[in-house]
Amino acid sequence: MKRLKIRCAVVGASGYVGLELLRLLGQHPRTEVVLATSNTHRGKAVAEVFPHLPLKTSLRFTPHDDAADFNAADVFLLSLPHGNSFNIIESLLATAKVIDLSADYRLKNPADYEKWYGFTHPKPHLLKKAVYGLTELNRRAVRGAALVANPGCYPTGMLLAAAPLAKLAGIKPDQIIIDAKSGYSGAGRVLAEKYLFTEASGEFTAYSVVGHRHCPEMLQETSRIFGKAVKIVFTPHLIPVSRGILSTLYAKTKVIKEEELRKAYIKFYRGEPFVRISPAGETPGIREVSGTNMCTIGLFADTENSVIKVITAIDNLCKGAAGQAVQNMNLMFGMEETAGLEAAPLVP
Amino acid sequence: MKRLKIRCAVVGASGYVGLELLRLLGQHPRTEVVLATSNTHRGKAVAEVFPHLPLKTSLRFTPHDDAADFNAADVFLLSLPHGNSFNIIESLLATAKVIDLSADYRLKNPADYEKWYGFTHPKPHLLKKAVYGLTELNRRAVRGAALVANPGCYPTGMLLAAAPLAKLAGIKPDQIIIDAKSGYSGAGRVLAEKYLFTEASGEFTAYSVVGHRHCPEMLQETSRIFGKAVKIVFTPHLIPVSRGILSTLYAKTKVIKEEELRKAYIKFYRGEPFVRISPAGETPGIREVSGTNMCTIGLFADTENSVIKVITAIDNLCKGAAGQAVQNMNLMFGMEETAGLEAAPLVP
Amino acid sequence: MKRLKIRCAVVGASGYVGLELLRLLGQHPRTEVVLATSNTHRGKAVAEVFPHLPLKTSLRFTPHDDAADFNAADVFLLSLPHGNSFNIIESLLATAKVIDLSADYRLKNPADYEKWYGFTHPKPHLLKKAVYGLTELNRRAVRGAALVANPGCYPTGMLLAAAPLAKLAGIKPDQIIIDAKSGYSGAGRVLAEKYLFTEASGEFTAYSVVGHRHCPEMLQETSRIFGKAVKIVFTPHLIPVSRGILSTLYAKTKVIKEEELRKAYIKFYRGEPFVRISPAGETPGIREVSGTNMCTIGLFADTENSVIKVITAIDNLCKGAAGQAVQNMNLMFGMEETAGLEAAPLVP
Amino acid sequence: MKRLKIRCAVVGASGYVGLELLRLLGQHPRTEVVLATSNTHRGKAVAEVFPHLPLKTSLRFTPHDDAADFNAADVFLLSLPHGNSFNIIESLLATAKVIDLSADYRLKNPADYEKWYGFTHPKPHLLKKAVYGLTELNRRAVRGAALVANPGCYPTGMLLAAAPLAKLAGIKPDQIIIDAKSGYSGAGRVLAEKYLFTEASGEFTAYSVVGHRHCPEMLQETSRIFGKAVKIVFTPHLIPVSRGILSTLYAKTKVIKEEELRKAYIKFYRGEPFVRISPAGETPGIREVSGTNMCTIGLFADTENSVIKVITAIDNLCKGAAGQAVQNMNLMFGMEETAGLEAAPLVP
Repeated sequence: MKRLKIRCAVVGASGYVGLELLRLLGQHPRTEVVLATSNTHRGKAVAEVFPHLPLKTSLRFTPHDDAADFNAADVFLLSLPHGNSFNIIESLLATAKVIDLSADYRLKNPADYEKWYGFTHPKPHLLKKAVYGLTELNRRAVRGAALVANPGCYPTGMLLAAAPLAKLAGIKPDQIIIDAKSGYSGAGRVLAEKYLFTEASGEFTAYSVVGHRHCPEMLQETSRIFGKAVKIVFTPHLIPVSRGILSTLYAKTKVIKEEELRKAYIKFYRGEPFVRISPAGETPGIREVSGTNMCTIGLFADTENSVIKVITAIDNLCKGAAGQAVQNMNLMFGMEETAGLEAAPLVP
Repeated sequence: MKRLKIRCAVVGASGYVGLELLRLLGQHPRTEVVLATSNTHRGKAVAEVFPHLPLKTSLRFTPHDDAADFNAADVFLLSLPHGNSFNIIESLLATAKVIDLSADYRLKNPADYEKWYGFTHPKPHLLKKAVYGLTELNRRAVRGAALVANPGCYPTGMLLAAAPLAKLAGIKPDQIIIDAKSGYSGAGRVLAEKYLFTEASGEFTAYSVVGHRHCPEMLQETSRIFGKAVKIVFTPHLIPVSRGILSTLYAKTKVIKEEELRKAYIKFYRGEPFVRISPAGETPGIREVSGTNMCTIGLFADTENSVIKVITAIDNLCKGAAGQAVQNMNLMFGMEETAGLEAAPLVP
Repeated sequence: MKRLKIRCAVVGASGYVGLELLRLLGQHPRTEVVLATSNTHRGKAVAEVFPHLPLKTSLRFTPHDDAADFNAADVFLLSLPHGNSFNIIESLLATAKVIDLSADYRLKNPADYEKWYGFTHPKPHLLKKAVYGLTELNRRAVRGAALVANPGCYPTGMLLAAAPLAKLAGIKPDQIIIDAKSGYSGAGRVLAEKYLFTEASGEFTAYSVVGHRHCPEMLQETSRIFGKAVKIVFTPHLIPVSRGILSTLYAKTKVIKEEELRKAYIKFYRGEPFVRISPAGETPGIREVSGTNMCTIGLFADTENSVIKVITAIDNLCKGAAGQAVQNMNLMFGMEETAGLEAAPLVP
Repeated sequence: MKRLKIRCAVVGASGYVGLELLRLLGQHPRTEVVLATSNTHRGKAVAEVFPHLPLKTSLRFTPHDDAADFNAADVFLLSLPHGNSFNIIESLLATAKVIDLSADYRLKNPADYEKWYGFTHPKPHLLKKAVYGLTELNRRAVRGAALVANPGCYPTGMLLAAAPLAKLAGIKPDQIIIDAKSGYSGAGRVLAEKYLFTEASGEFTAYSVVGHRHCPEMLQETSRIFGKAVKIVFTPHLIPVSRGILSTLYAKTKVIKEEELRKAYIKFYRGEPFVRISPAGETPGIREVSGTNMCTIGLFADTENSVIKVITAIDNLCKGAAGQAVQNMNLMFGMEETAGLEAAPLVP
């Protein structure tokens, strides 16, 4: 008999991404949260720590370590800091499906972990098994996956912008520039001076200008999509807002007109429930996707300069993390892909 | 006998740039404001309309048209919408110096006004006479100028980023990209829905993605600096803050290392009172220049991708408009270049 | 046969409140929007004007006047400026139920319209018929109502704070002070300088310090609740956020302790789906209710000063307008009171 | 011979208040900063840590403890956490004047320190000597003081609102309510989750609703001014801005009309350089005082309810801390009271 509700375990449930998972799963018609872990809030009722969540449950936070022994879930969604869940994921896979929202299974080449994260990947065999969960680009593989590596927030916006370009003649894949801007929730609940309201209010600045950790992920996936080596110049910035990433992608091309470009994107994303191509001349904004799993895409051809510009807006915590995880979970369990992800954004 | 105080007339004194002129001139040790025009506030005392200004004066706003007959000023600073001051400027030049903060005298080629502004420039002979007032790059000419065309806000940040590149071997001037982000005061007091707090709060978006009116100004000056035709890809965005422009410039180069780059900029801007080169690894932010005439510059070489990144931060109303006008005025009248422009920003 | 979906007509659908109605009704399991009026956007598809709304409909905006002849709706929700819907409401009542979100039917005494709004109320007989739709306080009357006058945003927060006090011994109803703070969406899409982002960002100020138009509504209802004349001192302020009202109520009392106060409120609001009493020592914030129909209430007794403080947080556009309208509609049509109103707020 | 420049030592120079002291003293025509202490930044050049400060100095941060042995300053401005400077202040007074910006010398009754701060005051004899530095109310005493206890930010706005009321017949001093709203810089550089941008953005909430530590200070000084015991109900709130405090004071009175009230305040503050009474009907805002030492006061009589409302706006870091300290220093050294404090606010 088919279970009516998918039993979800959220490991790392009190960070911003974990909290977003609880928000989305709490509104999902086909899931129930059966485990929520948090070392900080261990023992406390979830409804007491986060009274704003409309949870009809008496769930209490347990420590992260409890997840390893828990076998009453159909799927584990893990939102722990990088490098913290290698050991438990392997054992969890014996009884359940796993969606890992950290970077631990995103990179295919174990050497990349040494270069970018400073550790030797302890489970290289699982790297091969893990499916990179950029849903729109990997739907088929996600459906059959036991372990999904949920994409990073910047790569999500970037890859949705770049993927259709691979089908276009005349795009030079070695000259892609991404100028990205993110809200502060992307930094998590990290207590650092620069993240204080008093410091960030009225501020706008770049950071990690060269060598951001999301670069190898973008390179790996773009190269796969293009079928050849690409180069990506990436600069992240911080916007004084909580949520949202706007990415402006620049690509060189001598031949493409805006109309063609638009047609190509419309065709590429036809039927996609979470991608919206903006009408000609319109630019996407981060508010129209806030709290949603949508990605809106604006398209422009600067023909005088032989450059096209592709602008994407996503919510970093939702489509860029928890929302995409739910989208992937929906596919992995044969549910409607949009289940639990249909709420409109707050505008204004 | 030398006059102790320069008599300043501010034409268009109630817009954001005009107001910033009043703020700066009110704190200037060597100037007095003898005329302030505003059609909206005609007849009212400046101190009543703007009680926060520390003005020791009983000045009243007069209509803009009064400026034409006013001959008791040493300098006129005009901050009217584009196309509104052609007639009076010519007559003002008979008795005074003029700094025009509109775009009316920035472009050297009259045809550009037809293309970008939709009108035939009525005073092409004055176009030749006007000095483009990007102070750091044109200091000598500004000193001797009767008519200064004060630069636009985006071109100011962009040109200060780009100018030192002309001295460097291996920069390809046909592949410069500027991804710029501005606060909302750049739009002036325009009553449009998109500028309402309720719309802009939490929002981040691009606009005028292709063909912004500041493009010809940037092209003209960059070509002049480089001594050859350049290409500039420019994308402006709106940050939910009042003041500040952060510009991220990308240029292709195969050979330049970050250290070299830094040395070149330090040398280029040596002794400049209003340019600060950020230490290695540090990125400029808009708050550290807010309310000041400073431009801070961050320098990065992404050697793996053969790209350099030059990030500049300015205050769009100050260095990008009124502050630079005062800096130019200081030079035109043989005063200390920094007079009236030494206040620190509010941090935090 | 019972209709599966309630047919809703939204008159004035492009203002902030109208847009919030569309957002909520679009997510409601038991309603469909069959008419949306907007003079500004007449003829355009709703999905084109507001692409972020997840509407599965080809609805187009029609002019407001079309509502008068429309007879295929079960309920009309009107969100027009005050004084604009007197004529149509009477005719609409012949075939449908009506929820008016303007102030036109909130005041029982026609003379109040002359005093506070400057016009003679043309339909005093309907004033008597109209039910004041503060749901928690008037649930029974709302259930049977044909015409509901939906409360103002400030009165909603204020009355939910004040109502339980009527049951308490020792409260002096002639010394109630409400210090209220609202986000800018409360001002609607009004194009005024003070509402520009550049003006409002970083600002905090009071307005309508004496004689705000919501005063008579608060007085009328509080007097009704207390069964005697009350006095209310009310000061509204503007917070630099889009949504949310926080109201701090002060009442004199010699005898009440915090524990008692809390017990009284918990008892008064027992079983209410949209009221949450904060735990002792905790203060409500506007983010935890943003986008929701919740009202959170914080309770404090300053025994040294014989004053109690009741702090309420609501979303001005949702519980303070469109959300409460949907809540009322749910009751008027015998649906679950919470239908369509269960989404969690975005936190963070 | 009179020294041309007052030598200032700033103890605790890297917190927000210390930084504001450096900003103001760096622009002061008659002071030089000869010592700046910071344990965090010990050994580093001030100009390197805070490059935005226009300091013409090679000053380096020394540890706080160095202040005790430093005897080359005319005045010490101390901005350390409460309870940290008892020992050094006594020794500093042997050679210099002292302005303490902590709460350590604000309360006259040693028992208050036990009740509100949990320690026994170790220097009760100095408590008597210390002058409470609310300049406008204590000017004469400040002039002759060796030790000034600089007021807290909330008390500054509150007392400037309340003081003129003591001269008015019919004010009931036992029913004063202060509803105050502060920007986040008031919390200092404290690393707590609730102060993160992601948490505070879009938020508005009250805190310390009963028993804020500034209460005894307000009570003490108001009682002194009124010449009798008063009662003050105080509720602080947090506004999502960096700087600024808006305080709305409510007082009961049967007899006072707005015109009278205005006249009384104008008379009381006649000639005060840092107090501005708003015109009738206008409400002060925090932006018009941001970065300045001004206090603007709006006055309203709600005659129907026998209540007057006095709204004050100050910058919590400037008039509420560092600016008032400089104002006091100016008086203590016989300088112009406004020296170094004349800069206009940034508007917009």
